[in-house]
Amino acid sequence: MNILLNDEIVSRENAMVDIEDRGYQFGDGIYEMIRIYDGLLFEWEAHLERLVRSAKELMIPLPKGMEVLQKNIHLLMKESGVLNGSVYIQITRGVSPRTHHFPEIADPVLTAYVREMERPLEQIRNGIKAITTEDIRWLRVDIKSLNLLGNVLAKQKAVEQGASEAILVRGDIVTEASSSNVFAIRGQECFTHPTNQFILNGITRQVVVRLLESTNLTLVETPFTKEALMEMDEVFITNTGLEVCPVIEIDEQLIGDGIPGYYTTQLQKAFEALLLELIPQ
Amino acid sequence: MNILLNDEIVSRENAMVDIEDRGYQFGDGIYEMIRIYDGLLFEWEAHLERLVRSAKELMIPLPKGMEVLQKNIHLLMKESGVLNGSVYIQITRGVSPRTHHFPEIADPVLTAYVREMERPLEQIRNGIKAITTEDIRWLRVDIKSLNLLGNVLAKQKAVEQGASEAILVRGDIVTEASSSNVFAIRGQECFTHPTNQFILNGITRQVVVRLLESTNLTLVETPFTKEALMEMDEVFITNTGLEVCPVIEIDEQLIGDGIPGYYTTQLQKAFEALLLELIPQ
Repeated sequence: MNILLNDEIVSRENAMVDIEDRGYQFGDGIYEMIRIYDGLLFEWEAHLERLVRSAKELMIPLPKGMEVLQKNIHLLMKESGVLNGSVYIQITRGVSPRTHHFPEIADPVLTAYVREMERPLEQIRNGIKAITTEDIRWLRVDIKSLNLLGNVLAKQKAVEQGASEAILVRGDIVTEASSSNVFAIRGQECFTHPTNQFILNGITRQVVVRLLESTNLTLVETPFTKEALMEMDEVFITNTGLEVCPVIEIDEQLIGDGIPGYYTTQLQKAFEALLLELIPQ
Repeated sequence: MNILLNDEIVSRENAMVDIEDRGYQFGDGIYEMIRIYDGLLFEWEAHLERLVRSAKELMIPLPKGMEVLQKNIHLLMKESGVLNGSVYIQITRGVSPRTHHFPEIADPVLTAYVREMERPLEQIRNGIKAITTEDIRWLRVDIKSLNLLGNVLAKQKAVEQGASEAILVRGDIVTEASSSNVFAIRGQECFTHPTNQFILNGITRQVVVRLLESTNLTLVETPFTKEALMEMDEVFITNTGLEVCPVIEIDEQLIGDGIPGYYTTQLQKAFEALLLELIPQ
């Protein structure tokens, strides 16, 4: 595996960063994970736009080499030979003697790499189990930052309980999940948390919002409670890796009939059709 | 400057960490900053105890080399020739391909270094200006973790407004400041936020709580509002670098007479006396 380090491609063993990189001492940085289908970057423009927004919100000046980022990522992909996988891109505020406030001089550090990943078809087809847990994260999770301990601890709790995902509840409101957005269907209404500082506006979330137009479902972007969640007909999560993934059980209670629901399956088909459109056959 | 990297002392330029260190990708780690006065570590046992607690709360297994940590830190200090300064110690969960949940195999990575630092006497004597800002951090700030963006943004806001510190307010409750604990005196009562998940239990905070016994002040560990804060006779902050530091102005409003207050000065003298006791003359 080769690594993009700023604007240079280096071998994996040379991809080291300084101990006083603010990413390492403060989690002071941002990231994106982009899907590669058949050698093509999925929703690249949307990911890049969100990366630029995250940088702006944290006042991280974008590094030299950003202009050639797309070119470099394509080079990385080509070198890797990966046709189906993901690109991880991270930018930190850079290296400087440790002080809480921003350093006057620091060059942002960009790291990126490509990894092979098959579509998790078993989970997509059969659905996953989730738990609920308290959303203890900070109040700017709309920024895709490296301060991820709240997400890490929630996911770990899920794994320890034999589940795949942890649905986060702040007060009694379902916000999102540890690494995905949550949608829930009752009747012909499809509920999801509105985009504000309490959720990350997922790229797959945005795709699904557009795909909803092709269904009979009405999108309702409004906060809803955990109690309401447990009584929904269907629940699904979305993220770059799992795409549109049914949640068939939450806290050991079946959702609907405990199998992927009608509308979820319809949205999965619409997502597949979108992929087919994008990928030249 | 030399660096302690796990159980080895390496030169500064060789102190590099892997890009897939979880400290770098998730802020998945903990730290301590310990003061060196006259070649002696101040409150070492208390810092070590808190480091062990933070590790336990995040389920980070303490790395090999922890048994010899004190010996290695003393070696670092000796090599550095620093008599007055600080030691920074950080431990991350280690290097592993990126997944939110804990990796099955990962060796924690320890980095530590010594830096020269004079006592900030001007600030200690004359006091500092502070601003107030919303506490947007996660709900486990009792863990001294590397997820510090909330602290970073608050401190930056203070600096941009010509102040030295940002006092954090959650709802209408004063929790602590971006890198210090907050105490406030009215009459003979000394208020500070109780130790729970909303504040970091500072080592200097613990020292001051003990020193209060030598004054006529009564410690009141109870949440208090920003409104109450602004009407206090005296306000001071505590941390490893600033020790006991008067806050003479908050949000451009004077506290008391706008000079270091009687009891704050008394506590500073008690702190100085403690230092004199510890340091052989």
